Amino acid sequence: MIHAAARVQAAGGVRSLAFDASTPLQLANGEMLAPLTIAFETYGALNADRTNAVLVCHALTTDQFVAGPNPVTGRPAWWPRIVGPGRPIDTNRFFVICANVLGGSMGTTSPATPARDGQPYGLRFPPLTIADMVRAQSMLVEALGIQSLFLVIGAGMGGMQALNWASAYPKRVFSCVTIASAARQSAQNIALSELGRQAVMADPDWRGGAYYSHGVRPAKGLAVARVATQVASFSEANVRARLGAAHQRERFAFNADYSTGATSSFIERFDANSYLYLSRAMDGFDLAGDFGGRLANAFQGGSTRHCVFAFTSDWRFPPSESRALARALIAAGADAGFVEIESENGHDSYLGEEPQFEAALTGFIDANASARGLSLNGGV
Amino acid sequence: MIHAAARVQAAGGVRSLAFDASTPLQLANGEMLAPLTIAFETYGALNADRTNAVLVCHALTTDQFVAGPNPVTGRPAWWPRIVGPGRPIDTNRFFVICANVLGGSMGTTSPATPARDGQPYGLRFPPLTIADMVRAQSMLVEALGIQSLFLVIGAGMGGMQALNWASAYPKRVFSCVTIASAARQSAQNIALSELGRQAVMADPDWRGGAYYSHGVRPAKGLAVARVATQVASFSEANVRARLGAAHQRERFAFNADYSTGATSSFIERFDANSYLYLSRAMDGFDLAGDFGGRLANAFQGGSTRHCVFAFTSDWRFPPSESRALARALIAAGADAGFVEIESENGHDSYLGEEPQFEAALTGFIDANASARGLSLNGGV
Repeated sequence: MIHAAARVQAAGGVRSLAFDASTPLQLANGEMLAPLTIAFETYGALNADRTNAVLVCHALTTDQFVAGPNPVTGRPAWWPRIVGPGRPIDTNRFFVICANVLGGSMGTTSPATPARDGQPYGLRFPPLTIADMVRAQSMLVEALGIQSLFLVIGAGMGGMQALNWASAYPKRVFSCVTIASAARQSAQNIALSELGRQAVMADPDWRGGAYYSHGVRPAKGLAVARVATQVASFSEANVRARLGAAHQRERFAFNADYSTGATSSFIERFDANSYLYLSRAMDGFDLAGDFGGRLANAFQGGSTRHCVFAFTSDWRFPPSESRALARALIAAGADAGFVEIESENGHDSYLGEEPQFEAALTGFIDANASARGLSLNGGV
Repeated sequence: MIHAAARVQAAGGVRSLAFDASTPLQLANGEMLAPLTIAFETYGALNADRTNAVLVCHALTTDQFVAGPNPVTGRPAWWPRIVGPGRPIDTNRFFVICANVLGGSMGTTSPATPARDGQPYGLRFPPLTIADMVRAQSMLVEALGIQSLFLVIGAGMGGMQALNWASAYPKRVFSCVTIASAARQSAQNIALSELGRQAVMADPDWRGGAYYSHGVRPAKGLAVARVATQVASFSEANVRARLGAAHQRERFAFNADYSTGATSSFIERFDANSYLYLSRAMDGFDLAGDFGGRLANAFQGGSTRHCVFAFTSDWRFPPSESRALARALIAAGADAGFVEIESENGHDSYLGEEPQFEAALTGFIDANASARGLSLNGGV
């Protein structure tokens, strides 16, 4: 089932598929990346017809451990409300794949990976696009012997990948869910991510990206960048509670933990150069731009069923952009729903308790499972 | 005309009014600040009746040199389209005062000022509020012998001060113009300014705010903070032109000048601790909160004439907040206009060429000058 040039390996609890130099990844900028390793997790079982596979595309700051604990960091699954036994993406029913994104920090080939000279790529790593990430995932899905995915789903950067999947491989994507995302990175998001990148690069420990051998990582710059990724996830009440408290303190201090208490863990598990490469890939995403400026052209002729979710308080990926996406999908003749959820929790609402979101997602998935002839227990 | 306890002094081209310890500034946190120096500029001449004075409150990153070159930095006036001979705030007609804000970087008492022990205050400087800034300006205006200002005007942080003026001293403000501002700092803005502060404090050259004697300033952190102040001033086209170019470069590099080309000048002229104190003062601004949660109460009984301006592309101070402000003013029985300007240039639109903005501002000022009985040449 696994492609001849690839082999599954495991190290430190991270499972991955390694492609040797005979199967390079063709990048959008023309370069070839080889060898290539894709770290991934799976949950549930593939059915006999191989029709029940779900690909979860993770967001900028998460990883492949969508439904189980991360053995490297000890952190719990990041999306247990959505993926798991009896959850909307029911692992008793579906075979769920989640791969660490190309350029990511949890085992997939990235700037931290040794290049041919044995030293980490650092800034020698080629620039990435969302399409490159999707092409790498496609190699993994193919190697796993899956012709067509029942569902591709993602939020934020993961939503961009899901859209790129539906556009690039319409026959291989039965249904597609895009959450708190957009078909093009907004100028506002570009400005904010450049802000985060400048913070990383301003840290003297960044050393032009060649910090790996120095034993000190650009932790302070990355902590600031982390805040940049979170600003849209603070609710009004949230910001006032957390930063209001800071207002009472007379002294100013560097204290990136003010935000979630999880920032220090982020800094340990996330590579600063990955932040640079992934955020820039998001900034370059413009699906309409790739199709003559008309977004509907990106989906013309496809039969993928779409559902687009947005949260009212998400100002980095506002409902207006999701609405425009749904409009373009319908203009392309696609079967596309749009669901706007009232929520106070900003961009990260999809990670929390949002009963309306879960109900609509479950309805969409169940209807499509019926349409594809998948029974409730995962058989045909 | 100048208060007995104050004297005008000049150094390095910066003019200021120094209040000795007998005239302390009472701060909102209960502390007294003395001695106090307020650096200021004036343009035009005060008329015999002292009825033609205009106070311009500057924004976070500007200074008192609103209509003439800054002798310290050599930079030109920052608002020449609005303040000057024949401009909407006509210096042939009005006596224009602009003071460096309390805590600022251009001569007014701030964290960089020596405390009683001869060492710069640094983080020993007391926390500031917008009301504290206004109280300091009020001391200056009084010392200049002006009972009532014809107009108080400001954008961003300056708009907050203008509102605070109209609320705290309604009889001393004939008219008030609030531009691209809000009666309360939004959660989004608080998060962004905390991001800028974290960037400053992450810079090892910041040294807990005690960098003055080291001869090295936290320039990289401040450069990142500067970007945080600018993110809402980039237009869509602007971001794509500037950061799109960055996308083409293969290498990542710390290059805060990507933004305006003026960032390095900003870093030279602006003190990093001032950024911390001023941005936090903005974060704490909540005029309704000071009046039992009802914004209209802040203006009840006043006779100040208001005009509130907003720009459609300003996502840090969006028109919705200005609209709410205008609504509250009208609910308070105030004479209040609201002008929303279509603009592509974000928060900084008020600095650029915006004919509709200039026309409406001129109309508002001229009508009020007539109402106050000011003739076109500034007489009564």
